[in-house]
Amino acid sequence: MEIKERIIAKAREQFFRYGIKSVTMDDIASELGISKKTIYQHFEDKDELVYQLMLTEIATDKYEWSELNKGSSNVVEKTMKSMDLCKDSFNEINPSAFFDIKKYHPRTWKLFQEHKEKFVLEMIQKDLIEGVEQGYFRADIKVDILARMRLEQVEMGFDPNIFPPSKFKIVDVQLTLLDHFMRGMLTEKGLEIYQHYQL
Amino acid sequence: MEIKERIIAKAREQFFRYGIKSVTMDDIASELGISKKTIYQHFEDKDELVYQLMLTEIATDKYEWSELNKGSSNVVEKTMKSMDLCKDSFNEINPSAFFDIKKYHPRTWKLFQEHKEKFVLEMIQKDLIEGVEQGYFRADIKVDILARMRLEQVEMGFDPNIFPPSKFKIVDVQLTLLDHFMRGMLTEKGLEIYQHYQL
Repeated sequence: MEIKERIIAKAREQFFRYGIKSVTMDDIASELGISKKTIYQHFEDKDELVYQLMLTEIATDKYEWSELNKGSSNVVEKTMKSMDLCKDSFNEINPSAFFDIKKYHPRTWKLFQEHKEKFVLEMIQKDLIEGVEQGYFRADIKVDILARMRLEQVEMGFDPNIFPPSKFKIVDVQLTLLDHFMRGMLTEKGLEIYQHYQL
Repeated sequence: MEIKERIIAKAREQFFRYGIKSVTMDDIASELGISKKTIYQHFEDKDELVYQLMLTEIATDKYEWSELNKGSSNVVEKTMKSMDLCKDSFNEINPSAFFDIKKYHPRTWKLFQEHKEKFVLEMIQKDLIEGVEQGYFRADIKVDILARMRLEQVEMGFDPNIFPPSKFKIVDVQLTLLDHFMRGMLTEKGLEIYQHYQL
């Protein structure tokens, strides 16, 4: 891995674990055993590092989505696989990482919101329409409303004001929200296949 | 009705219709055909009027919930009745009313949040537990997580950033969210009775 990639990978690990605010450029440098100067040769400041990390996350997200689309025979399978992919990071993510971005890195937050609005929302809508066409979701679901709801639901699941980490584990919250989201749309045929993938 | 009550009722109507910020004490006075001085005899300022209105709304909410509890034979019926009660106000409410309170009347927003956290959340939790006991909701639903999700979902439905009024009607959004929330929990027995109440 090139040094730039290594810095991003380490930043990701540290930010996910401790949140953004409490991790300094010094911390990342010393974790990598390199000088802070080396980091600054690649990233102007911490804000830029956060921004570049988000660009990488978004690219990964798009790649994984396209792989899932190729490798799944139906929308229920695809959703369960995508949750499997996310499960590990749900366990890793410190909820404050999310809200630190909103508070302290508005440029990155904007980038993330645009990705949500443009890419993720569209992917969810496509999945819902596909699910209806395949007979797994009810024909009368309101795709526009439910897709937006789902988008916000994922974000809600990371909100420590709504689900305080002292009482809830993010992974439990996210799995419960997804399970409920699916069940609210499944037809009988859909429920059958859904229960199969859960086992 | 006493004058104080009439002022609150008119404020409610105007705030719901136009939002809080764009309705002045002058507007309310002239709508009632009274002097502004009369309003100020009962309410120190607009912030106090908004606060008193919220107290009234909360009292009404508690009363209606207790009436619903008495008058319903099961939790599905109760939920459908409560949505029927809310439907009209959903059609009336200007989404900015909600967010004006958050922005400009923090004391009232706090009161509302406390009501949500203490009363509404508890009522939803009780309903979910009752629904499980009555066999209408799945026995394995995560009551704590879903109750909090539902609480946030109602608020989300009023958020013009998520559901822009140019594209969505609040009443459609709220009905869709509730319908999906119910279906995500219903057992077969529950679904049967649910479909009956929808007709």
